[in-house]
Amino acid sequence: MQTLSSNASFGGIQHVIQHPSTSCNCDMTFGLFLPEEARDGPVPVLWFLAGLTCTHENAMTKAGAQAWAAEQGIALVFPDTSPRGDSVADDDAYDLGKGAGFYVDATQEPWAANFQMWQYLSQELPDLLAAHFPLDMARQAITGHSMGGHGALTLAMRLPGRFASVSAFAPIAHPTASDWGRKQLTAYLGTNEASWQPHDATLLMREAGFDGPVLIDQGTDDQFLDLLMPEALSEAMAKRRQPGSFRMQPGYDHSYFFIASFMEEHVNFHADALWSI
Amino acid sequence: MQTLSSNASFGGIQHVIQHPSTSCNCDMTFGLFLPEEARDGPVPVLWFLAGLTCTHENAMTKAGAQAWAAEQGIALVFPDTSPRGDSVADDDAYDLGKGAGFYVDATQEPWAANFQMWQYLSQELPDLLAAHFPLDMARQAITGHSMGGHGALTLAMRLPGRFASVSAFAPIAHPTASDWGRKQLTAYLGTNEASWQPHDATLLMREAGFDGPVLIDQGTDDQFLDLLMPEALSEAMAKRRQPGSFRMQPGYDHSYFFIASFMEEHVNFHADALWSI
Repeated sequence: MQTLSSNASFGGIQHVIQHPSTSCNCDMTFGLFLPEEARDGPVPVLWFLAGLTCTHENAMTKAGAQAWAAEQGIALVFPDTSPRGDSVADDDAYDLGKGAGFYVDATQEPWAANFQMWQYLSQELPDLLAAHFPLDMARQAITGHSMGGHGALTLAMRLPGRFASVSAFAPIAHPTASDWGRKQLTAYLGTNEASWQPHDATLLMREAGFDGPVLIDQGTDDQFLDLLMPEALSEAMAKRRQPGSFRMQPGYDHSYFFIASFMEEHVNFHADALWSI
Repeated sequence: MQTLSSNASFGGIQHVIQHPSTSCNCDMTFGLFLPEEARDGPVPVLWFLAGLTCTHENAMTKAGAQAWAAEQGIALVFPDTSPRGDSVADDDAYDLGKGAGFYVDATQEPWAANFQMWQYLSQELPDLLAAHFPLDMARQAITGHSMGGHGALTLAMRLPGRFASVSAFAPIAHPTASDWGRKQLTAYLGTNEASWQPHDATLLMREAGFDGPVLIDQGTDDQFLDLLMPEALSEAMAKRRQPGSFRMQPGYDHSYFFIASFMEEHVNFHADALWSI
C-alpha cells in the first residue's frame, strides 16, 4: 500500500492511496478524506461511488464534500470506478470497460479477470480500510452519482445492516431496462437476465427495499433522463412505502455543479443516520 | 460573444462564455457564476484570478466558491490566465506563455501581440460584463491564487476605488525578487527593472498600500514558499499599518484543497466589504 499524495483539507487530510487488489488483479487507487477528529480515534465513513468515465479523483476534487464531512466529523472514501492498467481489458466506448465497471463481478470474457468491483467494494476495500485507518466500520453510509448511484443503491440494499443510510445523485435507476445497463450487464454477466436482477436498484426496491433512510436527488434538466429512468425507482419507493425522499430538482443537470449544490444536504442526511447508531 | 455552457449551481447559474478580445487579439473564455438574486437585478462581483497552468476552469470546478457566493448573493468571475489559440506565442516551460500571462501588458516580442492581460482584466472584461450581465460594477472585490494572487493584489492596489476588498491564497508576493517573476517580467517587459515595479505586490504595498481590507492566507507546508516570498509582503503590510490579516495556515500546501478550505472565509470577507458600500 502506497500513499500517492496527502493534502491538508478543512482541518483534516485528503489522502490518495494505491494498493494491489486481489479482487481486481491490478493496482487500485482510492481517495480517503480523514477529518481532524480521526486523530483522536475512529470516525464514521461515507462512501462516494463515481459515475461513468470517472476515477477516484472527480468527486474528490469537484463535489465539495470535504467541507461538510469536516463539519460532521466523518471520513469520505472515493473508490475508482473500474480496474486499471495496461493488462486490463477495455473497450472503445466510454460506457464499457475502464471507467465503467458498473459495480458488478464480471463472469464473462474478457472482463472476468479484473472486473470484480462488487467483491472489491463489498469486501476487499472495507477490510483494508478497517485494518489500516481510524474508521468506525460499524458506522458506514454510502452515496454515489449516476453509475455510482446505481452502485450505492445496490450495495446498500443487498448488504443489509452494512450501511446506516443510502443516497444518490441522478442514479442509473433501472439498468435492466435501459441502454445504460443492458449493454454492460450483457457484456459483464452474460445474456441470462436473471443474473442482472441483483444489480437493478428498482428491482431491489420492489423486492426488499432498504432498512434505513433513502435520499435521491435528480435534476429535471438532466441530459440523460431517458437512460436514468428515475420514474421507475421513484414509483418503486412509493409503492413499497420506503422511508425516504425522491426529489426532482428544478433546472439541474447531470454535472458536478448539480452534485456540489446538494452535497451539504446529503452529508448532513448521512451524518444524522451515522451519529444515531 | 458565445455561451459555451450553462449549469445550474446552488440556485444560480454557472456560465462559461467565450468572446473575441480586442486586448489579446484572440478569443478569450471566462466563467461567470450568477446567484439566484441576479434574476431580480444587479449583484456585486467577486473576481478570482487563477495561477500558473490554470484556465478559467480550475477554480470554477475545484474551489467550492459557488456555495458561499450563492449564500451571499454575489457573482463570481473566473477569467483565463493568458491569451489562447494556435496563433498565440508560447514557450515550452509551464511558467511562461500560455497559462502564465502574469497579468501584465507585454511590450516585448513575441509576446506583445497577445499578452495584454492587464488591459484585458482592468478594462475590456469589466466593460463587457457591465454591458451584458446583471452586475453591480460599483461593488467589486478581487481574489486569486498564486500568480492570480499576485494579479489580484496588483490590480487592487493600482486601481484605487475599483475594488472594495482584496484577498489572496498563497500569492506570488514579491516577483521582482523571485524566480517566479524575474524570468517572466524580463520576457514580457524587458530588462529595465523600473517597468517591473508596478507588478510587484510587496513594492506596491510599501509605496501606497490598499484603501480597504486585505486578507492573505498562506499554507506553512506550501512546496513553493521560497518562490512565493510571503515574508516580504507580510513585513510590508505590517510596516505600512495596512488594515488586514496575513495568516500562515499550519499544514496547508499550494493545492486547491488549501483554497477550498478557506474559501468560505474569503467570500464572507469580501461580502462584508461589498455589502457595506
